[in-house]
Amino acid sequence: MVRVTRRYRFSASHRLHSPQLSGEENRRIYGKCNYPFGHGHNYEIEISVRGPVDPETGLAVNPALLDQLVTERIVRPFDHRDLNTEVPELSEFVPTTENLGRVIRQRLEERWKDTFAGPWPALDTVRIRETDRNIFEVD
Amino acid sequence: MVRVTRRYRFSASHRLHSPQLSGEENRRIYGKCNYPFGHGHNYEIEISVRGPVDPETGLAVNPALLDQLVTERIVRPFDHRDLNTEVPELSEFVPTTENLGRVIRQRLEERWKDTFAGPWPALDTVRIRETDRNIFEVD
Amino acid sequence: MVRVTRRYRFSASHRLHSPQLSGEENRRIYGKCNYPFGHGHNYEIEISVRGPVDPETGLAVNPALLDQLVTERIVRPFDHRDLNTEVPELSEFVPTTENLGRVIRQRLEERWKDTFAGPWPALDTVRIRETDRNIFEVD
Amino acid sequence: MVRVTRRYRFSASHRLHSPQLSGEENRRIYGKCNYPFGHGHNYEIEISVRGPVDPETGLAVNPALLDQLVTERIVRPFDHRDLNTEVPELSEFVPTTENLGRVIRQRLEERWKDTFAGPWPALDTVRIRETDRNIFEVD
Amino acid sequence: MVRVTRRYRFSASHRLHSPQLSGEENRRIYGKCNYPFGHGHNYEIEISVRGPVDPETGLAVNPALLDQLVTERIVRPFDHRDLNTEVPELSEFVPTTENLGRVIRQRLEERWKDTFAGPWPALDTVRIRETDRNIFEVD
Amino acid sequence: MVRVTRRYRFSASHRLHSPQLSGEENRRIYGKCNYPFGHGHNYEIEISVRGPVDPETGLAVNPALLDQLVTERIVRPFDHRDLNTEVPELSEFVPTTENLGRVIRQRLEERWKDTFAGPWPALDTVRIRETDRNIFEVD
Repeated sequence: MVRVTRRYRFSASHRLHSPQLSGEENRRIYGKCNYPFGHGHNYEIEISVRGPVDPETGLAVNPALLDQLVTERIVRPFDHRDLNTEVPELSEFVPTTENLGRVIRQRLEERWKDTFAGPWPALDTVRIRETDRNIFEVD
Repeated sequence: MVRVTRRYRFSASHRLHSPQLSGEENRRIYGKCNYPFGHGHNYEIEISVRGPVDPETGLAVNPALLDQLVTERIVRPFDHRDLNTEVPELSEFVPTTENLGRVIRQRLEERWKDTFAGPWPALDTVRIRETDRNIFEVD
Repeated sequence: MVRVTRRYRFSASHRLHSPQLSGEENRRIYGKCNYPFGHGHNYEIEISVRGPVDPETGLAVNPALLDQLVTERIVRPFDHRDLNTEVPELSEFVPTTENLGRVIRQRLEERWKDTFAGPWPALDTVRIRETDRNIFEVD
Repeated sequence: MVRVTRRYRFSASHRLHSPQLSGEENRRIYGKCNYPFGHGHNYEIEISVRGPVDPETGLAVNPALLDQLVTERIVRPFDHRDLNTEVPELSEFVPTTENLGRVIRQRLEERWKDTFAGPWPALDTVRIRETDRNIFEVD
Repeated sequence: MVRVTRRYRFSASHRLHSPQLSGEENRRIYGKCNYPFGHGHNYEIEISVRGPVDPETGLAVNPALLDQLVTERIVRPFDHRDLNTEVPELSEFVPTTENLGRVIRQRLEERWKDTFAGPWPALDTVRIRETDRNIFEVD
Repeated sequence: MVRVTRRYRFSASHRLHSPQLSGEENRRIYGKCNYPFGHGHNYEIEISVRGPVDPETGLAVNPALLDQLVTERIVRPFDHRDLNTEVPELSEFVPTTENLGRVIRQRLEERWKDTFAGPWPALDTVRIRETDRNIFEVD
């Protein structure tokens, strides 16, 4: 069994603000991330898959298929977008990177079986580097 | 003469759109950077100064003074902000990283003499890394 | 469940020398790290926590609380210090990065319950990058 | 128990081509990696070991022993070599990074007991960074 | 005047061997780079241009034009290729990174005027990172 | 003319304290760097040379000669050493990175002509990265 990780990038803006909380609570919990006009990041996402090595090809994953899936479902719809207003699944949630990670994982899982015919590779970890000091993983 | 460079970071959002151009021209020139709701980056700025080494202290620049100047004039007002709406000097210009670099340089020059008493250090280069593949320098 | 990692930095000096070993054994086992006047590193520490995402805030950890804990217990007392002489827990042990990792983990665990009220987040991994080729993890 | 990771580097060339597949299948599956004259990479390998901390030395692994093992078995025979023609174990397999990882792991395991006298450290993970967007781990 | 740098990547193989030198001289001068079957690198190239900021667009260079030029002339013909056999200009020269840098610069200069209509931007520096410890610049 | 840069590393400790200044002045000017027991860094030094490309070898510098010079004069005597006590030239100066850069440049210049027979390559820039946010260059 081998674990293969591929890295992708997109730049996006977001603002952390929960309508369930008061203005003061929002400022206390989210700090600078609650500033009214939003801000943004260069997000790096690392998708790890796991599977046996195919004896004929020597591959654990066809990288072209994974790239196409991640590009279509994640990079193209998120790159240079505002996460609060342009990612439908985040309209009901605060677009924290925790929630962003869950959306990314869900979007990949929805199309996983259509993309990879057999039982392998399995989706292992979705990792987001919001900055190089702030990293989130959803298993 | 020694050249000293210190690196700072802030995260911000922006959108490239020129009111002097038609919608189609904006899309053609700025591409994804013209998407209507904006996007953002983890900006890294590197401020280089140049000067002789003080024989008593062994320093070419007092780093605490430079840090205070850059924090007050650049990092605090720009971090987690929207460059289009919250940086006054950019309200009349498209907030490209070229123009952002000129604003940063201008803001540092305005306070340079108040910060450093004598003729040294001199401000050398202002460098902005918008992403790790896209770097801008203003001399 | 989400895993969140935050990175911190400090610079410190240390020297590897075990009083239980002869001078020759010390030189053989620790090599350059046994040189008599010590040396130092830019240490990077990555603290990983794990927990469920709070449905109201969208966070798995309040980053301000974690930052305050790590700053008070680790960064401030270790930064620009000599690990052999200024970290009490290391006075009885050789300040290898293995032992440093155990001290860091223990210091965080001692204050964990006072910092985070409920059962989450849990402390997952303490990782130290002594150099970019030499990495230590304590689970 | 502590996990220690050390990083090593080598530069090598390879070409992905399976004699069991037709020319068209080779081009479809391996894409640019099937170009006829080969290409190359700066490979970074990270060897992780796991073990208890020796109370006398404060070490979980003697780094000099690990360095010697990895240098002799991996870095010296692979650095500035062509993986297809100069690594015997890869002559029967397509030199994908999945297969390269398995060869590296096997080569280290063959000499592990001769290198480290007792039960510890155990070999944990072999990780290869083919590029900074393409990472392979063999447990 | 602003200096803009954009980074591109390609992976390629090469071998350093001068037909004008004896086998022994080749081994002495090029060391491991003279091993008979070649090796390879992940090359990073940074193209710096210099020019005034256009008052209407706020840009010193149209990045799409530069990307197209570099992709067509450098990345596509060099990526996953063998520099000795597949880059015609290097067939008469030893494919050192010094010579590679000169070929890259020459290829960009040949098409510069067709790509950028006016006098600006000017091509400033071509930088190649062969590894992260080995960097070459051609002005 | 081509500019070639090679990167080297060493880890060392130092303390900033000027005997010409009072204790209070030392604390005010050097801040944490004046803490009594010293601290340390992973120093990265980048040596840039400049010269024409030799038509026979395709090289602007023989890298083995440069590596030998830098290893003998800088890396070996500085690595895992205390700069205040073990570098003679720094005994009369505060071991700031400005002064360290001047010592490194001077040590290379002293042996330059013995190392490189002809007029080329010329020593261009000595750059020290004390941390990745604090960089010093001596021309």
